[in-house]
Amino acid sequence: MAEDEKYAQSIRDTLRAKKILAVNIIGSPGSGKTTLLEQTAQAAKKTGFSFAVIEGDLETSRDAERLAAVGIEALQINTKGWCHLEAHVVEKAIAALENAEHRIGRAFDVIFIENIGNLVCPAEFDLGEDFKIAVSSVPEGADKPLKYPMLFVQAEAVLLTKTDLLPYVRFDMELFHRDVRSLNPKCPIIELDLISGVGLDEWVSFISSKLEGKRRNAG
Amino acid sequence: MAEDEKYAQSIRDTLRAKKILAVNIIGSPGSGKTTLLEQTAQAAKKTGFSFAVIEGDLETSRDAERLAAVGIEALQINTKGWCHLEAHVVEKAIAALENAEHRIGRAFDVIFIENIGNLVCPAEFDLGEDFKIAVSSVPEGADKPLKYPMLFVQAEAVLLTKTDLLPYVRFDMELFHRDVRSLNPKCPIIELDLISGVGLDEWVSFISSKLEGKRRNAG
Repeated sequence: MAEDEKYAQSIRDTLRAKKILAVNIIGSPGSGKTTLLEQTAQAAKKTGFSFAVIEGDLETSRDAERLAAVGIEALQINTKGWCHLEAHVVEKAIAALENAEHRIGRAFDVIFIENIGNLVCPAEFDLGEDFKIAVSSVPEGADKPLKYPMLFVQAEAVLLTKTDLLPYVRFDMELFHRDVRSLNPKCPIIELDLISGVGLDEWVSFISSKLEGKRRNAG
Repeated sequence: MAEDEKYAQSIRDTLRAKKILAVNIIGSPGSGKTTLLEQTAQAAKKTGFSFAVIEGDLETSRDAERLAAVGIEALQINTKGWCHLEAHVVEKAIAALENAEHRIGRAFDVIFIENIGNLVCPAEFDLGEDFKIAVSSVPEGADKPLKYPMLFVQAEAVLLTKTDLLPYVRFDMELFHRDVRSLNPKCPIIELDLISGVGLDEWVSFISSKLEGKRRNAG
């Protein structure tokens, strides 16, 4: 793990020099991480940032294919049993994305890293990202933050996805907000309905402002 | 891990002697594992087996409290960050359940072990159970079996929960069945709507027949 910290630091240095924002997206299997990225493509174009995706999965390249189908540059990593991504693997993927930049003739402003669907282990690993995002979906139930606190404590924002299902499931919205707040008093909680697009603008603005902040700090 | 194999074997010996069936239930966060156990209580009474639950969570005792509220003997284990249960912890819980049997004056036929909400790591650990059950919920999407194959390959049955949400989400039922079959050609796939109770009888009959099988083999 100490070895991996060096890779994380090296990623951070590379991305600082290039003023690229890196975002580590963590959530349960099926919480809507890939759908979020699919939908982000259109909204990001309006806001004016470009992005690429590093896709982590144990097996299959289905998610990278889904993203490629909507024109997103996506690089699939298969961990073959590993329950989380590690920095030495991500470093190689970032080098491959540099080649993609040359190939397609444009630079990326943001790299989204979609971690393995898992609320536990990915929260323990630094990938050299600027920050982590926690994704939790309505049908999972409102009790997840306190059950998986490590992720929610660290998250720079919490995305509550699949709000279109609120009429059909039991979900205690007040409890969810209260529990997130108890772990992480200040992070934004963005409610997202990725069918109708409600919440997407808020999400894209959040990323935009983080990108501006990084560029400002980099001088 | 070799050390832990000894604990798993010791659990298996204890439960064989007592003719108790142990079932290791594994699924994503919020896939409906605790709701399944809540609902199993009534259905199991009809079928005539009694059970207790070992509840694994990183934090909180909410699940054990939910089960206790409907009269189920449940013992909470908090792993405090660990992403899966291990046999040495389960062995202590089983000893504690033996005390509970004396206290309440009845023996358990089945012990359900609700593992940490995680499709990856729990699939790698033997808890001395008779078999593992995979729980996957409709809103997670139909692509989970191939993405998390290790669990689905081992599962003695696959439970597809939250079928009441089928009208409201994209879910390719044919793909789900085909992918499960490609990993595990013979295991039953039980579709469950835990709101209306559809599928519960099939689930309880499945457990009942496994319990009878174990008793028969034990002579």
